[in-house]
Amino acid sequence: MYEAGRLEFVGTVTKVEDDTSKIKILPEYGEALQGLRGFSHIIVLYWFHLNDNEEQRRILKVKPRRHKGAPEVGVFASRSPARPNPIGLTVCELLDIRERTLTVMELDAAEGTPVIDIKPYLPRADCVRDAHGPSWTSEGPKT
Amino acid sequence: MYEAGRLEFVGTVTKVEDDTSKIKILPEYGEALQGLRGFSHIIVLYWFHLNDNEEQRRILKVKPRRHKGAPEVGVFASRSPARPNPIGLTVCELLDIRERTLTVMELDAAEGTPVIDIKPYLPRADCVRDAHGPSWTSEGPKT
Repeated sequence: MYEAGRLEFVGTVTKVEDDTSKIKILPEYGEALQGLRGFSHIIVLYWFHLNDNEEQRRILKVKPRRHKGAPEVGVFASRSPARPNPIGLTVCELLDIRERTLTVMELDAAEGTPVIDIKPYLPRADCVRDAHGPSWTSEGPKT
Repeated sequence: MYEAGRLEFVGTVTKVEDDTSKIKILPEYGEALQGLRGFSHIIVLYWFHLNDNEEQRRILKVKPRRHKGAPEVGVFASRSPARPNPIGLTVCELLDIRERTLTVMELDAAEGTPVIDIKPYLPRADCVRDAHGPSWTSEGPKT
Protein backbone atom coordinates (compact mmCIF):
# COMPACT_ATOMS: atom_id res chain seq x y z
CA MET A 1 0.00 0.00 0.00
CA TYR A 2 1.17 3.51 -0.74
CA GLU A 3 2.66 5.36 2.19
CA ALA A 4 3.17 9.13 1.98
CA GLY A 5 6.42 10.64 3.21
CA ARG A 6 8.28 7.39 2.70
CA LEU A 7 11.65 7.23 0.93
CA GLU A 8 12.31 4.69 -1.77
CA PHE A 9 15.84 3.46 -2.38
CA VAL A 10 16.45 3.74 -6.13
CA GLY A 11 19.94 2.25 -6.24
CA THR A 12 23.11 1.40 -4.35
CA VAL A 13 26.73 2.48 -4.29
CA THR A 14 28.27 -0.81 -5.39
CA LYS A 15 31.98 -0.21 -5.67
CA VAL A 16 34.38 2.35 -4.35
CA GLU A 17 37.93 2.43 -5.66
CA ASP A 18 40.23 5.36 -5.10
CA ASP A 19 38.23 8.31 -6.38
CA THR A 20 35.85 6.28 -8.56
CA SER A 21 32.50 4.81 -7.48
CA LYS A 22 29.74 2.90 -9.19
CA ILE A 23 26.05 3.47 -8.64
CA LYS A 24 23.75 0.65 -9.66
CA ILE A 25 20.20 1.82 -10.28
CA LEU A 26 17.42 -0.71 -9.64
CA PRO A 27 15.73 -2.17 -12.75
CA GLU A 28 12.38 -0.52 -12.00
CA TYR A 29 13.99 2.97 -12.19
CA GLY A 30 16.17 2.36 -15.24
CA GLU A 31 14.07 4.49 -17.59
CA ALA A 32 14.61 7.52 -15.35
CA LEU A 33 18.23 7.65 -16.57
CA GLN A 34 17.29 8.55 -20.15
CA GLY A 35 19.23 11.60 -21.31
CA LEU A 36 21.46 11.76 -18.25
CA ARG A 37 24.54 10.98 -20.33
CA GLY A 38 24.34 14.51 -21.79
CA PHE A 39 25.43 16.00 -18.46
CA SER A 40 29.07 16.20 -17.39
CA HIS A 41 28.15 16.30 -13.69
CA ILE A 42 25.31 15.08 -11.49
CA ILE A 43 24.07 15.64 -7.95
CA VAL A 44 23.80 12.38 -6.03
CA LEU A 45 21.54 12.22 -2.99
CA TYR A 46 22.02 9.21 -0.74
CA TRP A 47 20.97 7.89 2.63
CA PHE A 48 23.59 7.64 5.38
CA HIS A 49 22.08 4.31 6.48
CA LEU A 50 24.75 3.80 9.15
CA ASN A 51 23.54 7.00 10.82
CA ASP A 52 19.85 6.15 10.55
CA ASN A 53 19.22 5.61 14.24
CA GLU A 54 17.57 7.68 16.89
CA GLU A 55 20.82 8.68 18.63
CA GLN A 56 22.60 9.98 15.49
CA ARG A 57 19.50 11.73 14.22
CA ARG A 58 19.14 13.67 17.46
CA ILE A 59 22.63 15.17 17.18
CA LEU A 60 22.23 18.89 16.46
CA LYS A 61 25.79 20.14 16.91
CA VAL A 62 29.11 18.73 15.75
CA LYS A 63 32.75 19.71 15.66
CA PRO A 64 33.85 19.05 12.06
CA ARG A 65 36.92 16.98 12.92
CA ARG A 66 38.37 16.79 9.41
CA HIS A 67 38.63 20.59 9.28
CA LYS A 68 41.45 22.09 11.31
CA GLY A 69 40.31 24.92 13.53
CA ALA A 70 36.59 24.32 13.02
CA PRO A 71 34.44 25.40 15.96
CA GLU A 72 31.37 23.50 17.13
CA VAL A 73 28.60 24.22 14.64
CA GLY A 74 25.00 23.18 14.08
CA VAL A 75 24.54 20.20 11.77
CA PHE A 76 22.77 22.45 9.23
CA ALA A 77 26.06 24.40 9.01
CA SER A 78 28.02 21.20 8.32
CA ARG A 79 27.95 18.24 5.96
CA SER A 80 28.05 15.77 8.84
CA PRO A 81 26.24 12.44 8.30
CA ALA A 82 24.70 12.89 11.75
CA ARG A 83 21.64 15.06 11.13
CA PRO A 84 17.85 14.87 11.53
CA ASN A 85 17.49 13.38 8.04
CA PRO A 86 20.70 11.51 7.21
CA ILE A 87 20.78 12.62 3.57
CA GLY A 88 24.16 12.95 1.89
CA LEU A 89 24.82 15.09 -1.16
CA THR A 90 27.79 15.01 -3.52
CA VAL A 91 28.32 16.78 -6.83
CA CYS A 92 30.07 14.20 -9.02
CA GLU A 93 31.62 14.09 -12.44
CA LEU A 94 29.73 11.49 -14.47
CA LEU A 95 32.26 9.35 -16.33
CA ASP A 96 30.06 6.70 -17.87
CA ILE A 97 26.65 5.02 -17.91
CA ARG A 98 26.31 1.39 -19.00
CA GLU A 99 22.83 -0.01 -18.77
CA ARG A 100 21.87 0.98 -15.22
CA THR A 101 25.37 1.42 -13.76
CA LEU A 102 26.84 4.89 -13.41
CA THR A 103 30.55 5.49 -12.94
CA VAL A 104 31.23 8.70 -11.03
CA MET A 105 34.16 10.55 -9.51
CA GLU A 106 34.62 11.54 -5.88
CA LEU A 107 31.32 10.26 -4.49
CA ASP A 108 31.73 10.61 -0.74
CA ALA A 109 29.63 7.53 0.17
CA ALA A 110 30.56 4.10 1.49
CA GLU A 111 30.04 0.76 -0.24
CA GLY A 112 26.41 -0.32 0.09
CA THR A 113 25.01 3.17 0.63
CA PRO A 114 21.41 3.46 -0.65
CA VAL A 115 20.88 6.13 -3.32
CA ILE A 116 17.66 8.15 -3.10
CA ASP A 117 17.90 10.57 -6.03
CA ILE A 118 20.00 11.62 -9.02
CA LYS A 119 19.69 15.14 -10.40
CA PRO A 120 21.42 16.82 -13.32
CA TYR A 121 23.95 19.48 -12.29
CA LEU A 122 22.86 22.77 -13.82
CA PRO A 123 25.68 25.35 -13.63
CA ARG A 124 23.33 28.33 -14.00
CA ALA A 125 21.50 27.27 -10.82
CA ASP A 126 24.07 25.22 -8.93
CA CYS A 127 27.43 26.93 -9.47
CA VAL A 128 27.70 30.11 -7.40
CA ARG A 129 31.13 31.51 -8.10
CA ASP A 130 31.18 34.18 -5.43
CA ALA A 131 29.79 32.03 -2.59
CA HIS A 132 31.84 32.08 0.58
CA GLY A 133 31.89 30.59 4.05
CA PRO A 134 33.88 30.69 7.28
CA SER A 135 37.64 30.13 7.02
CA TRP A 136 37.55 26.58 8.48
CA THR A 137 35.77 25.39 5.34
CA SER A 138 38.90 26.07 3.27
CA GLU A 139 40.93 23.62 5.36
CA GLY A 140 41.01 19.85 4.84
CA PRO A 141 38.68 17.91 2.51
CA LYS A 142 36.17 19.69 0.29
CA THR A 143 33.14 18.76 2.42
CA MET B 1 8.76 4.76 18.38
CA TYR B 2 11.76 5.20 16.14
CA GLU B 3 11.23 4.21 12.54
CA ALA B 4 14.24 3.76 10.23
CA GLY B 5 14.13 5.25 6.72
CA ARG B 6 11.58 7.81 7.76
CA LEU B 7 11.87 11.49 6.87
CA GLU B 8 11.35 14.18 9.46
CA PHE B 9 10.13 17.59 8.43
CA VAL B 10 12.47 20.12 10.04
CA GLY B 11 10.74 23.29 8.88
CA THR B 12 8.38 24.92 6.41
CA VAL B 13 8.53 27.48 3.63
CA THR B 14 6.31 30.11 5.22
CA LYS B 15 6.31 33.03 2.86
CA VAL B 16 7.09 33.53 -0.78
CA GLU B 17 7.30 37.04 -2.19
CA ASP B 18 8.84 37.77 -5.54
CA ASP B 19 12.29 36.22 -5.31
CA THR B 20 12.42 36.10 -1.50
CA SER B 21 11.24 33.25 0.72
CA LYS B 22 11.24 32.52 4.41
CA ILE B 23 12.02 29.16 5.96
CA LYS B 24 10.82 28.63 9.49
CA ILE B 25 12.75 25.90 11.29
CA LEU B 26 10.87 23.99 14.02
CA PRO B 27 11.89 24.79 17.62
CA GLU B 28 13.34 21.32 18.23
CA TYR B 29 15.88 21.81 15.42
CA GLY B 30 16.83 25.41 16.20
CA GLU B 31 20.28 24.56 17.58
CA ALA B 32 21.23 22.95 14.27
CA LEU B 33 21.40 26.46 12.75
CA GLN B 34 24.40 27.53 14.85
CA GLY B 35 27.15 28.96 12.63
CA LEU B 36 25.04 28.93 9.47
CA ARG B 37 25.12 32.72 9.26
CA GLY B 38 28.78 32.51 8.22
CA PHE B 39 27.78 31.11 4.84
CA SER B 40 26.65 33.31 1.96
CA HIS B 41 24.70 30.47 0.32
CA ILE B 42 22.94 27.29 1.43
CA ILE B 43 21.51 24.18 -0.17
CA VAL B 44 17.87 23.71 0.74
CA LEU B 45 16.33 20.24 0.42
CA TYR B 46 12.55 20.10 0.56
CA TRP B 47 9.71 17.68 0.00
CA PHE B 48 7.41 18.24 -2.97
CA HIS B 49 4.44 17.27 -0.84
CA LEU B 50 1.96 17.98 -3.65
CA ASN B 51 3.69 15.28 -5.72
CA ASP B 52 3.84 12.75 -2.90
CA ASN B 53 1.36 10.29 -4.32
CA GLU B 54 1.69 6.97 -6.03
CA GLU B 55 0.87 8.28 -9.52
CA GLN B 56 3.44 11.12 -9.51
CA ARG B 57 6.14 8.99 -7.95
CA ARG B 58 5.80 6.37 -10.69
CA ILE B 59 6.50 8.91 -13.43
CA LEU B 60 9.92 8.07 -14.89
CA LYS B 61 10.00 10.31 -17.98
CA VAL B 62 9.00 13.92 -18.49
CA LYS B 63 9.14 16.59 -21.16
CA PRO B 64 10.58 19.67 -19.38
CA ARG B 65 7.89 22.09 -20.51
CA ARG B 66 9.56 25.26 -19.28
CA HIS B 67 12.58 24.61 -21.50
CA LYS B 68 12.05 25.29 -25.19
CA GLY B 69 13.16 22.43 -27.38
CA ALA B 70 13.65 19.96 -24.53
CA PRO B 71 13.14 16.33 -25.54
CA GLU B 72 11.51 13.73 -23.32
CA VAL B 73 14.06 12.79 -20.65
CA GLY B 74 14.22 10.55 -17.61
CA VAL B 75 13.32 12.23 -14.33
CA PHE B 76 16.91 11.73 -13.09
CA ALA B 77 18.00 13.94 -16.01
CA SER B 78 15.53 16.67 -14.98
CA ARG B 79 14.62 18.71 -11.92
CA SER B 80 10.95 17.77 -12.23
CA PRO B 81 8.98 17.48 -8.96
CA ALA B 82 7.56 14.20 -10.27
CA ARG B 83 10.18 11.61 -9.31
CA PRO B 84 10.48 8.44 -7.18
CA ASN B 85 11.44 10.51 -4.13
CA PRO B 86 9.87 13.98 -4.50
CA ILE B 87 12.91 15.82 -3.10
CA GLY B 88 13.55 19.35 -4.34
CA LEU B 89 16.93 21.06 -4.20
CA THR B 90 17.72 24.75 -4.57
CA VAL B 91 20.98 26.60 -3.98
CA CYS B 92 19.92 29.86 -2.30
CA GLU B 93 21.59 33.04 -1.21
CA LEU B 94 21.11 33.36 2.55
CA LEU B 95 20.08 36.91 3.34
CA ASP B 96 19.31 36.72 7.03
CA ILE B 97 18.62 34.48 10.02
CA ARG B 98 16.47 35.76 12.89
CA GLU B 99 15.87 33.24 15.63
CA ARG B 100 14.71 30.23 13.63
CA THR B 101 13.58 32.02 10.47
CA LEU B 102 15.83 32.12 7.41
CA THR B 103 15.36 34.62 4.59
CA VAL B 104 16.60 33.27 1.29
CA MET B 105 16.64 34.26 -2.38
CA GLU B 106 15.17 32.32 -5.29
CA LEU B 107 13.94 29.26 -3.42
CA ASP B 108 11.92 27.36 -5.98
CA ALA B 109 9.34 25.97 -3.51
CA ALA B 110 5.68 26.81 -2.87
CA GLU B 111 4.19 28.21 0.33
CA GLY B 112 3.80 25.44 2.89
CA THR B 113 6.47 23.16 1.44
CA PRO B 114 8.09 20.98 4.13
CA VAL B 115 11.87 21.42 4.46
CA ILE B 116 13.90 18.27 5.08
CA ASP B 117 17.50 19.52 5.26
CA ILE B 118 19.72 22.59 5.12
CA LYS B 119 23.36 22.26 4.11
CA PRO B 120 26.10 24.86 3.80
CA TYR B 121 27.14 25.61 0.21
CA LEU B 122 30.81 24.80 -0.14
CA PRO B 123 32.21 26.27 -3.38
CA ARG B 124 35.19 23.89 -3.47
CA ALA B 125 32.80 20.92 -3.60
CA ASP B 126 29.61 22.37 -5.05
CA CYS B 127 30.66 24.89 -7.70
CA VAL B 128 31.89 23.13 -10.85
CA ARG B 129 32.80 25.87 -13.27
CA ASP B 130 33.30 23.73 -16.34
CA ALA B 131 30.18 21.56 -15.92
CA HIS B 132 27.98 21.36 -18.97
CA GLY B 133 24.73 19.80 -20.15
CA PRO B 134 22.53 19.51 -23.23
CA SER B 135 21.58 22.73 -25.00
CA TRP B 136 17.94 22.72 -23.78
CA THR B 137 19.18 23.41 -20.25
CA SER B 138 20.40 26.88 -21.30
CA GLU B 139 16.86 27.88 -22.31
CA GLY B 140 14.20 29.17 -19.92
CA PRO B 141 14.48 29.15 -16.12
CA LYS B 142 17.65 27.99 -14.37
CA THR B 143 16.20 24.65 -13.27
